Formats: sequence, C-alpha cells, structure tokens
Amino acid sequence: MKLGILGGGQLARMLTLAAYPLGIRTVCLDPVKNPCASEVTKVIHAEFTDEAAIQSFLSDVDAVTLETENIPLSTVARLLKTHDFFPSEKALQISQDRFLEKSFFTSLAIPTATFRSVNSLDELHQVVPEVGYPCVLKTRRLGYDGKGQYVLKTPADIIKSWDFIQNQSLILESFVPFEYECSLIAVRDKQGHTLFYPLTLNHHTNGILRSSEAPFNNLALQKTAEQQARLLLNELHYVGVLAIEFFYDNHQLIANEIAPRVHNSGHWTIEGAQVSQFENQIRAIFGLPLGSTDAIGQSFLVNCIGNRLPIEDCLAIPGVHYHDYAKTPRAGRKVGHVTLVDSDNARYLKSKETLSRLLNLENDVE
Amino acid sequence: MKLGILGGGQLARMLTLAAYPLGIRTVCLDPVKNPCASEVTKVIHAEFTDEAAIQSFLSDVDAVTLETENIPLSTVARLLKTHDFFPSEKALQISQDRFLEKSFFTSLAIPTATFRSVNSLDELHQVVPEVGYPCVLKTRRLGYDGKGQYVLKTPADIIKSWDFIQNQSLILESFVPFEYECSLIAVRDKQGHTLFYPLTLNHHTNGILRSSEAPFNNLALQKTAEQQARLLLNELHYVGVLAIEFFYDNHQLIANEIAPRVHNSGHWTIEGAQVSQFENQIRAIFGLPLGSTDAIGQSFLVNCIGNRLPIEDCLAIPGVHYHDYAKTPRAGRKVGHVTLVDSDNARYLKSKETLSRLLNLENDVE
Repeated sequence: MKLGILGGGQLARMLTLAAYPLGIRTVCLDPVKNPCASEVTKVIHAEFTDEAAIQSFLSDVDAVTLETENIPLSTVARLLKTHDFFPSEKALQISQDRFLEKSFFTSLAIPTATFRSVNSLDELHQVVPEVGYPCVLKTRRLGYDGKGQYVLKTPADIIKSWDFIQNQSLILESFVPFEYECSLIAVRDKQGHTLFYPLTLNHHTNGILRSSEAPFNNLALQKTAEQQARLLLNELHYVGVLAIEFFYDNHQLIANEIAPRVHNSGHWTIEGAQVSQFENQIRAIFGLPLGSTDAIGQSFLVNCIGNRLPIEDCLAIPGVHYHDYAKTPRAGRKVGHVTLVDSDNARYLKSKETLSRLLNLENDVE
Repeated sequence: MKLGILGGGQLARMLTLAAYPLGIRTVCLDPVKNPCASEVTKVIHAEFTDEAAIQSFLSDVDAVTLETENIPLSTVARLLKTHDFFPSEKALQISQDRFLEKSFFTSLAIPTATFRSVNSLDELHQVVPEVGYPCVLKTRRLGYDGKGQYVLKTPADIIKSWDFIQNQSLILESFVPFEYECSLIAVRDKQGHTLFYPLTLNHHTNGILRSSEAPFNNLALQKTAEQQARLLLNELHYVGVLAIEFFYDNHQLIANEIAPRVHNSGHWTIEGAQVSQFENQIRAIFGLPLGSTDAIGQSFLVNCIGNRLPIEDCLAIPGVHYHDYAKTPRAGRKVGHVTLVDSDNARYLKSKETLSRLLNLENDVE
C-alpha cells in the first residue's frame, strides 16, 4: 500500500519512517524543492494546483492525507474524485479558517474565546466593544506560529492593528489570559473508535512551540478535553490524528485551535507512548487497529529552533532521544526535536534540568 | 554523516530507519538486486569484489559496517585503506569461521563445545572418537540457519556425513544437549564502554529463529554472559553491536557462535528497550554516547518466516508492533517480525497466547 502525503516536511518525514515497518510506503507532493522528507521517500516537486503533478501523484497512491493545512480546498476536491482523503475535507476547511474553526467550537458548545469576523475597518470599530480589551486581531487564514496577529489594548490600537495586518478577511478574538497552554492529540479510526493521548503541557516562545511535557496528569481536564475531542471527531467523520490546542485558565479549558494532522506537541509519543501519533495516523488511514496511546513514563519534548542542539551532549543525558530533520539551520526554523523519556521520576527531573540547561545555552548562542 | 553498509537486507533496512532520526544516512552495497533496504535507502548493486562499485560506495560514506558475515576479507582489507570499518576486521574473520570462532572462545576460557578441525575423511575418522557421539559435522564457513550441518550418532554416520557435506574445510563439534538457547546482545563504544541488553531466550525451528523472549531474568547467567561478552569485545577492540548465542544446560552457558552485527534475536529492542540495538550500533560507530539497554516491560518476538502474519490480527493484540520487511514471501525466508511488548504481566501473557495461536494457525497454512 502507498500513502500520498500533501506536504513533504518533517511531519511527512516522520510519518514515512512510521509507515515503513507496517509495509506501507509514502509519496509526497510539495511546492518546496527537496523538503526534508525527500531524504526518506519520494517527493514530487510541484504546486498543489499543478494538475499534471497531481495526476502523477494520485496514480501512485492508495489514499491521501496531509501534513500541512495550507492545501487549497480545490486540490482536495480534485483528488476526492478518485481517492479517499484523510482526515476529511471538512476538517481541513475548518482548520484553515479561524472564524469557521471558532464557529464550529461554538456550535458544539465547546468553550472558546469570544470572536467576531472582521472585513473592514468600520466593522473592526464596531466589534471591538463587543469583544472588549485586550483582544487580538488575526487573519482568518494561513497564520501560524504567531504570525499575522496583533494585540489591541486600547482604542488607539484599532487603526494600528488594521494597518499592521491589512487583510480583509480577519477575526477579532478576546485575548484569553491563561495559566498555561495544553493540547490533546486524539485519533479516530474508520469505525469511529477513538483514542486519546494524555494531555500535553506546552510552552511557546515567540509564538513557536518551544517545549512540551506529558502526561499532564489532571484527570478532570483529561476527561473534559476527551469529551470535546470526541464531539469534534464524530461531527467531522474524522479519520486519523487530530490535535486540539487549549488555553487553561481558572479551572477551564478554552479551545484555541485544531490541527487536522499529526502535531508538534505530539512528537514525544514516538518514544514516550506505546504507539506514536505517526503510526496511529497510518493505522487509522489504512483501517488497521489503533495502537495504545498510553504513556511510557514521563516525557519532555524540546524543539530545536534555528539550530540543532548538540547531539553528543543530548545523547549523554539518560533517556534522551534525538530527531534531526536534516534541514539547513535558519532563524525560527524547526530543524529537529529532542525527547526525554523516563519512568524513574527522580532521574527524569535531573535529566530534564540538564536538558533545559543545554537549551538555554543554545538560546544564548542563537 | 553517511554510513556505508555491506549488505542491504532487513538488518540494513532497520539500521537505516534508526539512523535517519540521528541525522545519519546510509548507503548499502549488495550483490542481490533490489534487496529490502533499497526501499528506504540507496543500494549499490554489485559484487563485494567489484572494485569500481566499492570505489563509488566508499566515495560516498564516512565509515563502513556490515549486516552480514558473508563479506570477503579482501573487501574489508581494501576499504580499510581509506575508511574505518566496524566492528573490526578480526571480529569478521573469526565469525566467518567456526573453527577460529571456537578456538577464540577457548583462548579466552569461554566454555564451548569440544571441537576439532576436519579436512579429510581420514581426519574425520580420527577425531570422532576424541569428540564422542553424538557430534555434529559442519562447514567451517558460510553455514547459517542450520544449513550445512550433519549430526553423527553412530560410526555409520561418518561416511554419510562426509558424503552429505563434501567440503574440505570442516569442523566436528560435540553435540551440546541443551535445555534452551539464549543470546546476549552487547554493544561497545570507541572508548571501550560496554552495555548489555538483557539475555534473550530463543526458540529455533529447523535451525531458524522462530521466537525470542526477553528479558530472560536470571541474574547469575546474565552476569556470566556479560563477563564473557566483555572479554570478547575487548580482545577484538570491538566497536558496535555483538551478538553471542549460547546453549544453556545444567546451569552452564556454552557459547555457540557470535554475530559481529545487529542480530535477529535483538529485534525486540526496537520497542522493548530504551534504545534499540540498531540505534546503538549507529551511536557506537559515530562516537555518540550509547543509549540505555534497559528493557521496557516483557517482550516476545516472533519471526514471520515464509509468510507475513496477518497485520490486522497482529495489531489487534494489545502491545503488538509489526515489522514488514517488504520482501516477496518465499519458503524459509524471513519476511518480517512482530514484537509484543507489555509491562503488565497478566496482559502480556494473554497477548502472548493470542499471538502464539496466530503463529500456529499461520504454520498450519504454510
């Protein structure tokens, strides 16, 4: 069997490495030349709208999934003529548009920030009082890792934010104060069985995921998050891995966004869970029984942003595993990740401290 | 960094998959066309003695290792002119020749079967009484998985065994009665640090490894096996993974053979140990700190011989992981393996029973 992946970055790379042992190969389609999955599998270099390339891609695969939300819906409509697409067209559509996404949360009674759609400066003036300060003006589409956002604190920020973003399709959201951010990785198979990884606590820097820790042991929150995830998965007839990012404040989870794919905050599952998010994505798509999402000990995931962490120093720390994406280092670019897994808590904490120190040294150098 | 691997079978395939996350790529050289590693990495198709092919292979790699003992020593001598070769030339030489191998065990006072070299029928007549019945006549070189062996029970078998094997370079060994077979996977880095996986209990059928179970918890045996392994590793200035196969009888380990490479009985370490034999082989070769060889729970490894086990049935069993080598099924051929890992002993035993039942059903079909 062969899986087509739209996108050929590190998520496609790790999906491919998880697929091989199952006897499943992959082919990627990516507008970028030689993305990092090309080291481990075939990548067709073409725009997502290139009909000839899509035909060649489809002729070679049994089913299609994605590793990025930045896929034209027209591409998905095209491939649905002949192929199954996972997780689902609707999930992709919703995840591409913050307004649809938050409307979807609200329709399922999943708590989220107060939000309004904004298409003009007049409209912005009108909805700011409804949302209240502080609030955040964002593009509805294509923003990620904190790009395309402006925080409004006073009426003077209305014009500034409009000038900064200059996009007619916007969303204004109330600024959610939070004690921390967390995410839930869920997986649903074709029969509708769902499994959930333990909640992961996430720490962002400049809008980019810097580190994650799992399991975040809070049974009540875990249960709430799973209930919300189940609603989303079932409503979307979802097949595969879904990530939901939450803010947590005052004993409440506030859904922020979904990613219709394997997710950075779930990379710890490669060594830290019985079966990884990557393998479960493959299993779900090909109708194989899902694997256990139980954690093996405690995990601490660190992204290598801009630069790799020194591999010798990392691997000298007990329980640390290294993932190099074979990308050229560049400021702000995720070039790898490192995961510490240990079931001995005292040793885990010591290793976490050592790894954190490495991370800070690295930051100083950047 | 790039690792050259002599051979491109499933061991090279799994080495490659373990190398990618460390940012290390592989290139294989294999006389067989399209061996199973070719799905995951570049394989140069040529004889091991093809000078042009070896030049091209070497021009592309930083160090060389092997995944099979069936490599001409002249090839290793050739590549040593310009490249590091792991584990070591001497280890390869010894492992290729049962007489050298057993002589090496004896030189280190490691218990092994009584043995004599045999180069003629006359010599065979002469040494049989010294070794005693039952005994086994084997080729000194290139036999594996029980091929090229003949068991002698009475004097009438002397001529029969000679006629059966017809090879001038033979070894006669006393037949070791055994309660069970086990193996130790060891790894040594460039500084001489050594680590050992837990002893693995092995079950062979028709001379081919059928299943393995680990850890085989016997502290006294583990200690003895580790002492013997350390002697071998240090004497050979070994770098990388070594497997030692033992017979166990009457409270004693009797060394049978070594494999200077990752080993089938260690495949359970992919999911069943903190760091797999494949990753530790890569780490050792590239001077990276070795990873923990501690087991995660109990592991039961089953080889898929001749046919794959049905993937859906396997993955429906809790804790089971599937490894398809992407080989065309053929009688007696290892086409994959399946590993059950669980730290819950009751569930482990239940799953082991289910998996064993699948295995037996599969055998019936073969």
